[in-house]
Amino acid sequence: MPWFDLPEAELKTYRTATAEPADLDAWWRDRLDAARALSQPPMLTPYGEDVYGPLRVWDAEFSGANGDRVKAWYLRPPTDADLPTVVTYIGYGGGRGLPADHVLLPSAGYAVFVMDTRGQGGRWSTGQTADSGPAGPEFPGVMTRGIASPETYYYTRLMTDAALAVEAAASVDGVDATRIAVSGGSQGGGLALAAAALKGDAVKVCHADVPFLCDFHRAITITAADPYAEISQFLAHQTTLIPAALDTLRHVDAALLARRITATTLMSVGLMDEVCPPSTVYAAYNEIQAPKDLAVFPFSGHQTPRTHDETKLRHLHAHL
Amino acid sequence: MPWFDLPEAELKTYRTATAEPADLDAWWRDRLDAARALSQPPMLTPYGEDVYGPLRVWDAEFSGANGDRVKAWYLRPPTDADLPTVVTYIGYGGGRGLPADHVLLPSAGYAVFVMDTRGQGGRWSTGQTADSGPAGPEFPGVMTRGIASPETYYYTRLMTDAALAVEAAASVDGVDATRIAVSGGSQGGGLALAAAALKGDAVKVCHADVPFLCDFHRAITITAADPYAEISQFLAHQTTLIPAALDTLRHVDAALLARRITATTLMSVGLMDEVCPPSTVYAAYNEIQAPKDLAVFPFSGHQTPRTHDETKLRHLHAHL
Amino acid sequence: MPWFDLPEAELKTYRTATAEPADLDAWWRDRLDAARALSQPPMLTPYGEDVYGPLRVWDAEFSGANGDRVKAWYLRPPTDADLPTVVTYIGYGGGRGLPADHVLLPSAGYAVFVMDTRGQGGRWSTGQTADSGPAGPEFPGVMTRGIASPETYYYTRLMTDAALAVEAAASVDGVDATRIAVSGGSQGGGLALAAAALKGDAVKVCHADVPFLCDFHRAITITAADPYAEISQFLAHQTTLIPAALDTLRHVDAALLARRITATTLMSVGLMDEVCPPSTVYAAYNEIQAPKDLAVFPFSGHQTPRTHDETKLRHLHAHL
Amino acid sequence: MPWFDLPEAELKTYRTATAEPADLDAWWRDRLDAARALSQPPMLTPYGEDVYGPLRVWDAEFSGANGDRVKAWYLRPPTDADLPTVVTYIGYGGGRGLPADHVLLPSAGYAVFVMDTRGQGGRWSTGQTADSGPAGPEFPGVMTRGIASPETYYYTRLMTDAALAVEAAASVDGVDATRIAVSGGSQGGGLALAAAALKGDAVKVCHADVPFLCDFHRAITITAADPYAEISQFLAHQTTLIPAALDTLRHVDAALLARRITATTLMSVGLMDEVCPPSTVYAAYNEIQAPKDLAVFPFSGHQTPRTHDETKLRHLHAHL
Amino acid sequence: MPWFDLPEAELKTYRTATAEPADLDAWWRDRLDAARALSQPPMLTPYGEDVYGPLRVWDAEFSGANGDRVKAWYLRPPTDADLPTVVTYIGYGGGRGLPADHVLLPSAGYAVFVMDTRGQGGRWSTGQTADSGPAGPEFPGVMTRGIASPETYYYTRLMTDAALAVEAAASVDGVDATRIAVSGGSQGGGLALAAAALKGDAVKVCHADVPFLCDFHRAITITAADPYAEISQFLAHQTTLIPAALDTLRHVDAALLARRITATTLMSVGLMDEVCPPSTVYAAYNEIQAPKDLAVFPFSGHQTPRTHDETKLRHLHAHL
Amino acid sequence: MPWFDLPEAELKTYRTATAEPADLDAWWRDRLDAARALSQPPMLTPYGEDVYGPLRVWDAEFSGANGDRVKAWYLRPPTDADLPTVVTYIGYGGGRGLPADHVLLPSAGYAVFVMDTRGQGGRWSTGQTADSGPAGPEFPGVMTRGIASPETYYYTRLMTDAALAVEAAASVDGVDATRIAVSGGSQGGGLALAAAALKGDAVKVCHADVPFLCDFHRAITITAADPYAEISQFLAHQTTLIPAALDTLRHVDAALLARRITATTLMSVGLMDEVCPPSTVYAAYNEIQAPKDLAVFPFSGHQTPRTHDETKLRHLHAHL
Repeated sequence: MPWFDLPEAELKTYRTATAEPADLDAWWRDRLDAARALSQPPMLTPYGEDVYGPLRVWDAEFSGANGDRVKAWYLRPPTDADLPTVVTYIGYGGGRGLPADHVLLPSAGYAVFVMDTRGQGGRWSTGQTADSGPAGPEFPGVMTRGIASPETYYYTRLMTDAALAVEAAASVDGVDATRIAVSGGSQGGGLALAAAALKGDAVKVCHADVPFLCDFHRAITITAADPYAEISQFLAHQTTLIPAALDTLRHVDAALLARRITATTLMSVGLMDEVCPPSTVYAAYNEIQAPKDLAVFPFSGHQTPRTHDETKLRHLHAHL
Repeated sequence: MPWFDLPEAELKTYRTATAEPADLDAWWRDRLDAARALSQPPMLTPYGEDVYGPLRVWDAEFSGANGDRVKAWYLRPPTDADLPTVVTYIGYGGGRGLPADHVLLPSAGYAVFVMDTRGQGGRWSTGQTADSGPAGPEFPGVMTRGIASPETYYYTRLMTDAALAVEAAASVDGVDATRIAVSGGSQGGGLALAAAALKGDAVKVCHADVPFLCDFHRAITITAADPYAEISQFLAHQTTLIPAALDTLRHVDAALLARRITATTLMSVGLMDEVCPPSTVYAAYNEIQAPKDLAVFPFSGHQTPRTHDETKLRHLHAHL
Repeated sequence: MPWFDLPEAELKTYRTATAEPADLDAWWRDRLDAARALSQPPMLTPYGEDVYGPLRVWDAEFSGANGDRVKAWYLRPPTDADLPTVVTYIGYGGGRGLPADHVLLPSAGYAVFVMDTRGQGGRWSTGQTADSGPAGPEFPGVMTRGIASPETYYYTRLMTDAALAVEAAASVDGVDATRIAVSGGSQGGGLALAAAALKGDAVKVCHADVPFLCDFHRAITITAADPYAEISQFLAHQTTLIPAALDTLRHVDAALLARRITATTLMSVGLMDEVCPPSTVYAAYNEIQAPKDLAVFPFSGHQTPRTHDETKLRHLHAHL
Repeated sequence: MPWFDLPEAELKTYRTATAEPADLDAWWRDRLDAARALSQPPMLTPYGEDVYGPLRVWDAEFSGANGDRVKAWYLRPPTDADLPTVVTYIGYGGGRGLPADHVLLPSAGYAVFVMDTRGQGGRWSTGQTADSGPAGPEFPGVMTRGIASPETYYYTRLMTDAALAVEAAASVDGVDATRIAVSGGSQGGGLALAAAALKGDAVKVCHADVPFLCDFHRAITITAADPYAEISQFLAHQTTLIPAALDTLRHVDAALLARRITATTLMSVGLMDEVCPPSTVYAAYNEIQAPKDLAVFPFSGHQTPRTHDETKLRHLHAHL
Repeated sequence: MPWFDLPEAELKTYRTATAEPADLDAWWRDRLDAARALSQPPMLTPYGEDVYGPLRVWDAEFSGANGDRVKAWYLRPPTDADLPTVVTYIGYGGGRGLPADHVLLPSAGYAVFVMDTRGQGGRWSTGQTADSGPAGPEFPGVMTRGIASPETYYYTRLMTDAALAVEAAASVDGVDATRIAVSGGSQGGGLALAAAALKGDAVKVCHADVPFLCDFHRAITITAADPYAEISQFLAHQTTLIPAALDTLRHVDAALLARRITATTLMSVGLMDEVCPPSTVYAAYNEIQAPKDLAVFPFSGHQTPRTHDETKLRHLHAHL
Repeated sequence: MPWFDLPEAELKTYRTATAEPADLDAWWRDRLDAARALSQPPMLTPYGEDVYGPLRVWDAEFSGANGDRVKAWYLRPPTDADLPTVVTYIGYGGGRGLPADHVLLPSAGYAVFVMDTRGQGGRWSTGQTADSGPAGPEFPGVMTRGIASPETYYYTRLMTDAALAVEAAASVDGVDATRIAVSGGSQGGGLALAAAALKGDAVKVCHADVPFLCDFHRAITITAADPYAEISQFLAHQTTLIPAALDTLRHVDAALLARRITATTLMSVGLMDEVCPPSTVYAAYNEIQAPKDLAVFPFSGHQTPRTHDETKLRHLHAHL
């Protein structure tokens, strides 16, 4: 995929054309409050001590949207100190997988709280959390699940989970609640932006690599790649749902939510990324008012170069 | 796709290697009874009279699995007589669409009752029926939804819908309940076989073209084509679920259910069909004890040649 | 396929850059007159009465270009009244198929006259009409057959067939010759535009979905999708034929012919259609001087959403 | 493409299962006689003397099937002697191209007579010869043109051309009519086998690389690659034509014709060739009673390794 | 990719048909001795201490084939004890990447020594080691580099590196040289088998997931997937090199070398793996005489399910 | 591939944005001098006299970069006169192949000296020349071999070979050193431009079809097609090498070198060429100050139409 989006100079000043729904803050406050009303405390069960040696691992669960119990992993290095903690989110199609997939941060001295992805986790990594809620006609995948209204949309539930994961993590023993970061790539990046926006000062650092879920209205017209294309392919046939779907998407657009972020933010973008086109990433980045940085990879697609892992570790050391 | 399955001579005698679950009849009886216990009567609303001229069309709904309301179309030629009626089911990814998609049978003098497909209808035609029930981690599409147990599996619900659609149609004004056929292609063919099996003598004729949902255990090892491959790709990662998933699939295997069919049956198979491989179609056909015919298309894939439409009309005239 | 053509605002005012051949009207008059000189009356044979029940079906044929006999279907609802009649044309690669494919309009009270497509009908539906005429070197498919001059070009013959199909239908018993519509999608849409243009007031309504055969000169440079690409791939090697081929295409460009349409016209366009790019559809639409409407589907490709079927029925009820 | 056909040991003894039509010799004699009855003498026009320097080049044409004039190139080294001459045929989709494509044999001391391919020559090289004859419904490409009967089939005409090309070449000034070879790859190889079979002792050497047009009945069931797949895809829909088409193919099956070859023959086969599967090549080779050799390339597909060019030159030196 | 290789029952007893070269042990002894003669001691430089927190990381290099300096990472948990150590190898196209990619084993209490892959490391992860030695004509990739003789072949050099990496690791401070494992997946798995074979009792545990480089002679005829297909595509044209190439491959066939393994071995295989077909994995497994286990994943392709990571950790705890 | 690059009007005035390295002439002079210092005289061995008849063929070799011996073919018509001679270069992935591939020019009266391509020749034709020199981590193919500095880059060596091939040819018996042309397509075209630039008046005519290796900086951002994409895919991961790689590419950019060409030049471009995008070809063409012509093929991709072969022969007759 060559450079197919706006020229780099225009990317730097590009602003999303999507109008924010009136009372978006109130609408999201209602979502979170409704979920909290059904909430139970997180539960942690020690996991696989024979397997991971000195590393400490718990099989966790907490209450997300609808009060649904969402699975998670909680990993810590072998210390009893209160630790700075990173809440992480997973990319599209995947679930929390195994603790083995999440040892980098504990190795480097952080606690990590890995949120499972409801109803996903069968495509490239495993999940264990069920989705609930209405499930009307849909294009395969979760992009169109409940898209007929913002209240029934899948991503309203998932972003609610993401925000409540921060609250759950903060309440866990050994977590320094004043030093919480959110982090993820692709869908995980979109969720990190959303959680940082919805939780404001409760999140100190936000890492969002090649984030998905940003500037939907533009994204679904400029890429033919999944998962955004699940929406356009659905609306190709369900034409009467187009206005409702576009309105729904405005409510969960991480580019619009990003205006609310106060965390120190580090993002990344690949200029050859056709999955999450560069302009949609800039759409989010350009809305952020907090201290921020953007790693631009001119020849990369949707896969962030691995060198960026060390950049993120350094950023955590400096800011969390 | 060339001939890739068993040689035609072996197809004719091929029998599925999958063992039927003990008490399969009782298990299914429980499913239907549980659904009936939550059932409400069908509801019919006149539809689009200005559009379809003399044709009579109703927007229908009836109670399926879990008591969920399932949408349907009911179309009739302009007569008040009790008519022989065909209950039809839709292929994978599609929903009931519009009445315009279903006018052939009414043109030829039959009533038709078109069942919508819960949670589908966003891929190539539109649906309007929501799925309910548990939705654990899944591979995109419905093939793995709830696959961890037969009671939670998506196709248990959908086959229940299919059987109850026959009951709903039989109760509708103007339907001659002694002359009911079931019909469909691909997923619709698998549902027709299942409905004919579960409803026994209530179904007089069964048409199943290139049926899906047959001989799952073999199908998921011999084709890489969707939708069967949704299952194998899911089990590639969710390896601990393999035994449970295989057991689930035995409960909704239309090849095993086919032994119960008493309707006069007409099936079709394409010897180059990699979506529903020929041996899996023969697996069902070879179990049927009732009067039966099989149209074999040596050079066809998963698309039944259109000439077969006239063959099916002739078969209806002769047997319904 | 994302939005790849002009922005929607520019589409609305886009005009083809192709110059119309001088004396195009005279040239086409000569074509039709030459064909009429070799013409024999249409012949209708009752077909498959046992199959289609009350529906009345004739296997028809009429004289097209070169006097070649072109097959057709004639279907009517069970009435003896003179009926408004729709002449329909088939998409690329297909033929007239079976009557079963064409029952929607008779169900809704119209007669329908379905023209077979000479030399096509082996790709996705069946045809039974042979092509005649010179057949020089060609790229597989019919797009380059006889392209070296407008007189020998395949589409000159096919558009002649399309115009004469209107005349044949008008002469058939039971057709109300004052209420004739033409209709089709893709190639069928291009033929409908051409027939409406060439037959003027003899056509009262024109339906053209995602029409092919429009604004050839632009089309062959902006899409790599078949069938337009058959031409560019041919000219990639047959470079000395480029000027002649471009001149030939001007003679059968439905966008240029569209200026002559007097029928009330309904068209549709998919903004993600790479087979018949949006600008080429607008190129035809923007030339039409008659009453007209355009259904714009922002997320659809070359497949018109099925909801449009009801829109077309309503349009027929209102205008035919 | 890995080894997908019979194991090599079985290939060596594989015999086609197709029964030869009764009176095949008489049938072909009638075809050639009918063509000869409409024949005009070959015509040669000097070509591009300024371009090819010492090489002598003529733009030629001769009468093929139906008396149609078929284009050809005639190239010779700069000598007046009567020369051994190779009649060559072109692969599928191509035409005679330019003399520049055919200089290898004249460089090495042979005359070459290159037959154009009627109705082809727009896909990868240029042709200039029109096809005539009936053209019913067809799948794009020439494989199904006129397939409803052997008399109307495209390849009956093309094989007639191929046989008459030998006669035309033999009559040309400077050709040693006692030393004529036929040669080609893929479709050209099938034509070389056919010409050698139909012209018997008039052909002294036959080179057929990875020949097409052999053992059709098997070929169309074991490969999904074009051009064989044009036939299976056509018969997927035109199911009523299957018996007639299979009978037609028996008449032009180069594997059946190969029994008649008396020329010293050199063939080649790629064991990974999915276009012309190895067993279909062996089907022809194993029928040949004349002196013969087969170059087997275990890792090659449909492209003969270029080293085989020198092998063929050596074979010509030894046997022509 | 469905099951395409031998049935599972035959896999269990399948033995490679490739004959081992005479004196293979002596030949390899010469290779290693020649490399050792040019060897310099390993060098370790502390790396990125600010990044990885408590984890200890060294940028390492050691002498491999030709005395070339090969890069490596050496990671340890924060302890000074002599540790059991895993030497790991990377999959095709990748290099050692960053320490961040290799923290699982140190988290669980092991030292890890990650060998870079000479001349690779530009496809999906980064490498920093140059290849040396003859580089004749080649198909892109390293599979055919120097394939004309075993002495010049790329994989001779790379397997030499792999064996010497074990020696280098054993000499490093803090490594318990009596408790060394080798480990890798795909190419890394083939190298692990080779290193375990060449180093005998110096290796205590061997982990080889879906190993590449096994049973070459069969592999290159039964899969069209890269990287094995690099060889068949090369030999499609370089036909005169076929015998030499086949002989070369026998010298580096990990299935033949596997007979020499004395380490306790754990392997894995995906029955839908077309990259490293199941039979080629069994070819190696079935030669091993040491204590061994095989994890069979019936629905997995070339990607080992992540659950296997915990299985390997448990196996290390039990056997290293 | 439709028109995807700049509009034709802009192509005509497009200038590369890449700045030429300071002292590029001196840098290249050093390269050639260093190679000449290690040079041995060309060696010619008669080849295959029994095969090619009157044509005279030698298996040649000469000293290229690093003094490496590079293979070549030398072909002549059967005359002893000093002849005008064309030095030809091969496209990406190929080697010199066989003399049979190069007989057109000798047929037309020219001598031809065909340079093999070091380290290539395993993809579509055979080569026999090894590459030497440093080979760090690379993406498969040669595009990234040694890209970390201009001195180590593969194309520095290959362009050096190309320039020295002209010197070698000029020294061969029977070559008229005052009448030397360079010629090639794609990679061969880029090498022809480079050789013409580096050898100045020693080259009288230059033919470069759809040349590769031009305007690298733009090319690697506007096409996703190999081989340019080998570089972007490499830099997607090796992000720290981006500045060095871009600097390296400036040294071997044939568009920058083209300013130095004094030969009469004929180039060709396909406006649908995504392998060597049109603007990159114009980038070179628009820098040339010598007499020049450009054949523009509006519908062609990367394959030059064969008619251009005769155009080139005529151009040679007129200018060499």
